[in-house]
Amino acid sequence: MRLEHIGIAVKNLDDSNELFAALFGEAHYKVEGVESEGVLTSFFKSGGVKIELLEASNESSAIAKFIEKKGEGIHHLAFEVDDIEHEIARLTGLGFTLIHTVPKDGADNKRIAFLHPKSTNSVLVELCQEKS
Amino acid sequence: MRLEHIGIAVKNLDDSNELFAALFGEAHYKVEGVESEGVLTSFFKSGGVKIELLEASNESSAIAKFIEKKGEGIHHLAFEVDDIEHEIARLTGLGFTLIHTVPKDGADNKRIAFLHPKSTNSVLVELCQEKS
Repeated sequence: MRLEHIGIAVKNLDDSNELFAALFGEAHYKVEGVESEGVLTSFFKSGGVKIELLEASNESSAIAKFIEKKGEGIHHLAFEVDDIEHEIARLTGLGFTLIHTVPKDGADNKRIAFLHPKSTNSVLVELCQEKS
Repeated sequence: MRLEHIGIAVKNLDDSNELFAALFGEAHYKVEGVESEGVLTSFFKSGGVKIELLEASNESSAIAKFIEKKGEGIHHLAFEVDDIEHEIARLTGLGFTLIHTVPKDGADNKRIAFLHPKSTNSVLVELCQEKS
């Protein structure tokens, strides 16, 4: 299980793209909408890890709710796994609470499943596997 | 500037070491106290990035205050730089607010400086440089 990306909830993707480009000294390399999640995302690279900025594209988006409750900031950590069904079964067996027991489509050509932060020290953890 | 580690604030390091070992399928590889910061830390590896768990070792620790305000969870992102003084000057020039304009000693044999989250989308960003 290796860290693949960090998701950061932002209010305005254009403004935040500019901010993180200044911070990293390098612009984002792609923008992608995920309609089913109600998000518009942009990606930066930092070392071997991606930084994913997430802007809500509608009011019922999980990102809109997150920002309403907690404000902007780090939203989730995503770990790449080789076999997401196996990991879901392994972690469920260990007592972790999965939000998705069946993987769903995410951004960046991935199948994803989230763990509930109540079982992971309030860290929202995403499992992801590249679609073949 | 490459992602070096992610800091996660926890209430009980022993419990959280167990939890993250179960999650990652691998135990932490070291524990280190940083007296000047009032923290006890443990480190995991995930891909090329470290996960640093932080437990407050006294009540005036920044981690104790963070947990009191926001609860457990992701505390900061740390980026390794080659020349921390240069980065502090570059980012100050770009309008970022630095909490430390002079690097101080951190865990894991590093010199560190934090940016104020108000200038970085509420993400607490640490710059770090390995001590030579």
